Amino acid sequence: MKKFLPALAMALFVATTSCAAQGDMILPPPNMNDKLSVMDALNQRQSSRNFVDKNLSPAQLSKILWAANGINRADGKRTVPAAIGIYSVEVYAVTKEGIYLYDVDNNKLKLIAEGDHRATTTTGQSFVSKAAVNLVYVETPAAWESARRTPPRDSQIAFANITVGAMIQSVALAAETEGLGNCVRGSINRDEFKKVANLSAEKNILLAQSVGYVK
Amino acid sequence: MKKFLPALAMALFVATTSCAAQGDMILPPPNMNDKLSVMDALNQRQSSRNFVDKNLSPAQLSKILWAANGINRADGKRTVPAAIGIYSVEVYAVTKEGIYLYDVDNNKLKLIAEGDHRATTTTGQSFVSKAAVNLVYVETPAAWESARRTPPRDSQIAFANITVGAMIQSVALAAETEGLGNCVRGSINRDEFKKVANLSAEKNILLAQSVGYVK
Repeated sequence: MKKFLPALAMALFVATTSCAAQGDMILPPPNMNDKLSVMDALNQRQSSRNFVDKNLSPAQLSKILWAANGINRADGKRTVPAAIGIYSVEVYAVTKEGIYLYDVDNNKLKLIAEGDHRATTTTGQSFVSKAAVNLVYVETPAAWESARRTPPRDSQIAFANITVGAMIQSVALAAETEGLGNCVRGSINRDEFKKVANLSAEKNILLAQSVGYVK
Repeated sequence: MKKFLPALAMALFVATTSCAAQGDMILPPPNMNDKLSVMDALNQRQSSRNFVDKNLSPAQLSKILWAANGINRADGKRTVPAAIGIYSVEVYAVTKEGIYLYDVDNNKLKLIAEGDHRATTTTGQSFVSKAAVNLVYVETPAAWESARRTPPRDSQIAFANITVGAMIQSVALAAETEGLGNCVRGSINRDEFKKVANLSAEKNILLAQSVGYVK
């Protein structure tokens, strides 16, 4: 908690002093007080597909997104590792209300497109449209422009997949702390999602993960 | 805990009724009683390189390996997800005493090679030889032989990297519950490690992770 507070305070300062665009969602700080242990969460980890269509609270969304890609230190480092310190994976949150990009620095959901586009994050699994939030993990090769050295493309993809693996596990465990189910999915309507989420051509959709209340 | 007990009981039954080969290490059940929360562990997650050369206890090793690739359900499913249910990643534990393969079904470390081969899991980072255990994550393409359908090779690699990402995050969080540090590493002396660990040619060394006491 000690280490987290400065980063959080900074984030809240930025968030409250910058104007949120219409439709953006400023998230509350993640709730650090629940007590489900790491070992119990690992013991409970499993995939769920029997979702019920019930929204998460902003606090729950905040926790899930912070677990996936949040800042946990004053120097801006995160809850998940990234090779060579280059964070090349963006997290999109697709809810009944819209498609949002997780703004890591400001712990905010930036509105990309209004409306229920949850079905675009699958190629047909019907449970997806009931999951409160479908996370879409997108590699942004442009992130490497700021690196001292640029690894070959296949290494960049491997690094991004490893980071995404860490993200889905963080999310699965954080979901357990809220009694929520999760399901990792590789079949995504990539062309359609790229269109509705306004993704530029070079962005690479790696994986999706449904999170929500279960029956 | 409920769901874990049958799988554990089965594993212990097998372990105690099968003869362990000389040098193998039958691990105690992972300690489920420590109370570090998921959220506190995520908040503390970071990389450490300042290891001290002090062995982990068998109970600590058990916890780390179970977090990486352990069985958490009676049907044999695990603490980490795998695409299409094909577990294609093996975990090697490299300690001062030897190289061991984590035998998932029996919660046992199977001796592969005696002696201190920790330096072979890096290309020169000196801290590696001080870390109590260096985990080496190895893809086994042969695992797909039992699959209903065989994905293209690049998908197999992507799936394995995603699972490894989940493994390193599980291990990082489980290490926090023991006050241990961890560091994920991509630079591995692959040729040398393949030789000393008797890996067949098609096996694919993906990543390494040092875990141990820190200064």
